[in-house]
Amino acid sequence: MLHLKSETGPRWFAQVDSNLDDILIDHAHCEKKAAGTALNLMFAYVEDLELCREMTEIVGEELEHFHMVVDLLARRGVKFRRLKPSSYGRKLNDLVRTGEPHKAVDRLLVAGLIEARSCERFQKLAEHVDDKELAEFYQSLFESEARHHTTYTRLAKHFAPEAEVLARLEELYDAEAAIMEEGEELPRMHS
Amino acid sequence: MLHLKSETGPRWFAQVDSNLDDILIDHAHCEKKAAGTALNLMFAYVEDLELCREMTEIVGEELEHFHMVVDLLARRGVKFRRLKPSSYGRKLNDLVRTGEPHKAVDRLLVAGLIEARSCERFQKLAEHVDDKELAEFYQSLFESEARHHTTYTRLAKHFAPEAEVLARLEELYDAEAAIMEEGEELPRMHS
Ligand SMILES: [Fe+2]
Ligand SMILES: [Fe+2]
Ligand SMILES: [Fe+2]
Ligand SMILES: [Fe+2]
Repeated sequence: MLHLKSETGPRWFAQVDSNLDDILIDHAHCEKKAAGTALNLMFAYVEDLELCREMTEIVGEELEHFHMVVDLLARRGVKFRRLKPSSYGRKLNDLVRTGEPHKAVDRLLVAGLIEARSCERFQKLAEHVDDKELAEFYQSLFESEARHHTTYTRLAKHFAPEAEVLARLEELYDAEAAIMEEGEELPRMHS
Repeated sequence: MLHLKSETGPRWFAQVDSNLDDILIDHAHCEKKAAGTALNLMFAYVEDLELCREMTEIVGEELEHFHMVVDLLARRGVKFRRLKPSSYGRKLNDLVRTGEPHKAVDRLLVAGLIEARSCERFQKLAEHVDDKELAEFYQSLFESEARHHTTYTRLAKHFAPEAEVLARLEELYDAEAAIMEEGEELPRMHS
């Protein structure tokens, strides 16, 4: 359902176990960035009214998630602070082709891809962490991020024929699995 | 209450009377930009949790306003399209000082200033237009934009002592009145 080509393995869980606070802080930043991505897509394709409505929904939901993570940090006594982002988002954005309508298709598919991976990691985290509050929190986010994934993937079809979108989706999801395979030293939501 | 140093006069109403559709389309773009401004302020000052909460509220309200204007355009049979923006926002943003905390103070005061001017114009428009639906619509926006003005001006005081903020407010509001006095050929919400 999420189209992902790989599954998160033990390397990342080792990072989670020894750096949970950083992962949580990065998660807050990711939710904020997700709101920014949706608003930027709305700005770029403002004549597509269905896209505008969906982006408005997503902006609101991502900001709500942001505050949920910030509140969770406060309850756990972890100070929210700036954090060097992982290179995951940049690497994926580098795959976006220039020139419309390719750019629109790729931006939407990449946004959907990040949602899919977040979704997969939230579910894995919910199973992995011992902390019950945290496990329930991740479980609660799973559903809306899965819905965001579906929305972005569907909207990409406004800009190119379905077969073309699905072929590009295969390419991008292969590339994402390779990026995940490389991994990253910094412990982050998408490291 | 709005701190403005000048009142909108007949020059602008002449533009409204002969270019209402363009003013309405520009209004939709302004609401969208207002959402972007609030989200960017949240990104820039993400460690200020009160600011984050207020910006989240404002992003949601501005996007709601955006859709209200887009729906109004549809009911009136006016096609929503891209439009060259007025130079008002750029001229005001040019006044923002570099270096913190001055930059934060100015960005917040300028955001509040644009809210104040929008607010003034909505009220004037509500009185000016014959169309009852339109008059009621502008009246309904007045209150929330006035609240946004107050919020931005209050938040500026997180970054500098009150006396300093109020002195800078005087300067910026004088500059805005001068920009408005210059006027602009293109018929826009802030021309
Ligand atoms: Fe989210
Ligand atoms: Fe999401
Ligand atoms: Fe507004
Ligand atoms: Fe506003």
